[in-house]
Amino acid sequence: MKTYQTMTRAALLREKEALEQQYKEAKALNLNLNMSRGKPSSEQLNLSAPMMNIFNGYSNLVDAAGVDCRNYGEMDGISECKELVSRLVDVPSENVIVYGNASLTVMYDAISRSYTHGVNGYTPWCRQEQVKFLCPAPGYDRHFKITEYFGIDMITIPMTEDGPDMDLVEKYVSEDPAVKGIWCVPKYSNPQGYVYSDDTVRRFAALEPAAPDFRIYWDNAYCVHHLYEDDQAEIPEILSECEKAGNPDLVLEFLSTSKITFAGAGVAALAASKNNLDYIRKQMTIQTISHDKLNQLKHARFLKDKKTIHAHMMKHADILRPKFEAVLDILDEELYGLGIGTWTTPKGGYFISFDAVEGCAKAIVEKAKEAGVILTEAGATYPYGIDPKDSNIRIAPSLPPMEEPVQAAKIFALCVKLVSVEKYLSE
Amino acid sequence: MKTYQTMTRAALLREKEALEQQYKEAKALNLNLNMSRGKPSSEQLNLSAPMMNIFNGYSNLVDAAGVDCRNYGEMDGISECKELVSRLVDVPSENVIVYGNASLTVMYDAISRSYTHGVNGYTPWCRQEQVKFLCPAPGYDRHFKITEYFGIDMITIPMTEDGPDMDLVEKYVSEDPAVKGIWCVPKYSNPQGYVYSDDTVRRFAALEPAAPDFRIYWDNAYCVHHLYEDDQAEIPEILSECEKAGNPDLVLEFLSTSKITFAGAGVAALAASKNNLDYIRKQMTIQTISHDKLNQLKHARFLKDKKTIHAHMMKHADILRPKFEAVLDILDEELYGLGIGTWTTPKGGYFISFDAVEGCAKAIVEKAKEAGVILTEAGATYPYGIDPKDSNIRIAPSLPPMEEPVQAAKIFALCVKLVSVEKYLSE
Repeated sequence: MKTYQTMTRAALLREKEALEQQYKEAKALNLNLNMSRGKPSSEQLNLSAPMMNIFNGYSNLVDAAGVDCRNYGEMDGISECKELVSRLVDVPSENVIVYGNASLTVMYDAISRSYTHGVNGYTPWCRQEQVKFLCPAPGYDRHFKITEYFGIDMITIPMTEDGPDMDLVEKYVSEDPAVKGIWCVPKYSNPQGYVYSDDTVRRFAALEPAAPDFRIYWDNAYCVHHLYEDDQAEIPEILSECEKAGNPDLVLEFLSTSKITFAGAGVAALAASKNNLDYIRKQMTIQTISHDKLNQLKHARFLKDKKTIHAHMMKHADILRPKFEAVLDILDEELYGLGIGTWTTPKGGYFISFDAVEGCAKAIVEKAKEAGVILTEAGATYPYGIDPKDSNIRIAPSLPPMEEPVQAAKIFALCVKLVSVEKYLSE
Repeated sequence: MKTYQTMTRAALLREKEALEQQYKEAKALNLNLNMSRGKPSSEQLNLSAPMMNIFNGYSNLVDAAGVDCRNYGEMDGISECKELVSRLVDVPSENVIVYGNASLTVMYDAISRSYTHGVNGYTPWCRQEQVKFLCPAPGYDRHFKITEYFGIDMITIPMTEDGPDMDLVEKYVSEDPAVKGIWCVPKYSNPQGYVYSDDTVRRFAALEPAAPDFRIYWDNAYCVHHLYEDDQAEIPEILSECEKAGNPDLVLEFLSTSKITFAGAGVAALAASKNNLDYIRKQMTIQTISHDKLNQLKHARFLKDKKTIHAHMMKHADILRPKFEAVLDILDEELYGLGIGTWTTPKGGYFISFDAVEGCAKAIVEKAKEAGVILTEAGATYPYGIDPKDSNIRIAPSLPPMEEPVQAAKIFALCVKLVSVEKYLSE
């Protein structure tokens, strides 16, 4: 098989004609398929149905420490739920604050607090001349939206299979005191599914920032979200690595159970040094009396220990894995060897990342949409929504029922081919 | 009976001796009673126990509009819960955003957003020379803490039985463009239990602010929290009053079900004009994907309609009323006619407000604490925690079981007498 790039113009024209016919047929199906967001499917949500009946009477609404979870109090979370978080990301439970339902809100809050009141007593960002963030990309669009909303200058850092380009990260962080943070999804990164190498994690822990209020914003969103029982990524635990490196306050780690139990109705948490947490708790006393402890208690009782968490996550994997594999199979079948795209093969998380020929991503997403397949907007995986190469597309196969990702992937591959052919013909 | 002020020195000394003996006996009881915070009692929390079993299977987790409440989406709340809020405060449901568990967080967020991004596009408060807030006092300490945290200058406005001194409010609001807001608890105010008169509400709606980004922060925390079936306060609905007065964007109304169902595990909401909500929704898209819709659905199904809400609140009243009446009876018995204190007799809400002889509040709270009775810190009901007259004390009888408020009130009255005697003797 020849790559598109090496095909003759005549061959490309023939290919184009055939593809256009297929596209016409696909459009005629009037499909409405969505692979745009990392939403769990109904089948996955059903796995947590028993959690809804975990309280059998009001006497059960007192936690192990004797706290009545129906009343105000325990601002930074009940101890049972701190222990749950401790099991999820291997940090001591005293390094945990449990929040409400969304880690995105906790991250927004961290940036907002730094903007209004500064990091641990340093000058608030709103009073600083310039604030910059490093943004490994492709990355999570909602991270970039937060920093953009606060007028923070975003610097794109290229991603590698081992994590962000650490030479570049070290250079920026150590040389520029305006650089105040970096967004990281260390495990099964969004959207590539890459796992930071041990070396990358240790280099993060050993950073020597020019700015004393620099922090690593470590979004461990997919900490236990493996697709394979026998091929599970593990990364060094960042808090202890930072401590070992003599930088205990360097990192804020975020997580939630949104993709463990119910999306948007889970519990979110922050793990950090005592020093960081003490400062944050001062703000919390102004902001809230307490979060929803009944939901915290429900989660602690349902997810229990490492063994039950693992068993639960493997049920998720059994639902997700076939969808990922089906999409990857189709990409292989339809696109392998054509030289018009590369893609990742994640072992966990919620996404597959696809890199099209430069300048084609927007057109592909548009074409797919016309044929009833909604993908994440092209560019979304880059700061300011601008992919400089117009190449990256995020594929989210989790939400639709099993047949749909297959159908959607076929149409996606068709659109990739069609747009690529047009691209080469126009050159 | 003579007032303390008109007693001879000899009589005061005899009184002091007797009171000191009583105080000694009280201390010997080693009590540990708490009337410091507006927390519901276990008995009240039990009223909402059936809510925990309201979901009998996962098929029930879809709302009336067909939304799966277990998944992401419906950022500004499910329609069923907006309708619930609509019933609580008589606003159209399209004027409602339903949030997470705490109205305090929604209020913090409103101030924080105004500080970082401004009100509806006006210059962010962090970029303005000076920002001032009017603070009717005595008032809610947590309101004042938020504005203090953001470095906002607080101006105390005296409270009357009809609400804040409106002549003063109108003067400040119309003359000073640095005045950006006022904290209000319009119904059963914290701590006095005062209800704004119709005239006060209409004067609020008709305010003509010098600052275009002035808003009324209307914390309708006790909207349905009556103590008496046959003596229920009603106030004009503020959103429609503002609209009638040609100021539709003037008010942000906050509420929660924390003192209807579970404290800290209820749902919070904001009611405002479409214009205001549209601006706020823009921030929300950065801040969250959605709030806990399962909790929203649970509340909508449990509290249902106006009739069921009213019946539920009357059960709360039946538990709260005897505690309020017991405390008030003791204040009457022990302090009436002595000229050493005045107090309010609320028809709803969570507090009784006590005004001691000037310069005595701190000493009374301290003395009560020594005898095992914890009251809200003196001064807390004023901006910056400083009561210029050192006179106001907030009494919160809701939390302890029935016998305790009686015992606590007796010790409180004893401390009032003892401190007042000492005060007069020292003059």
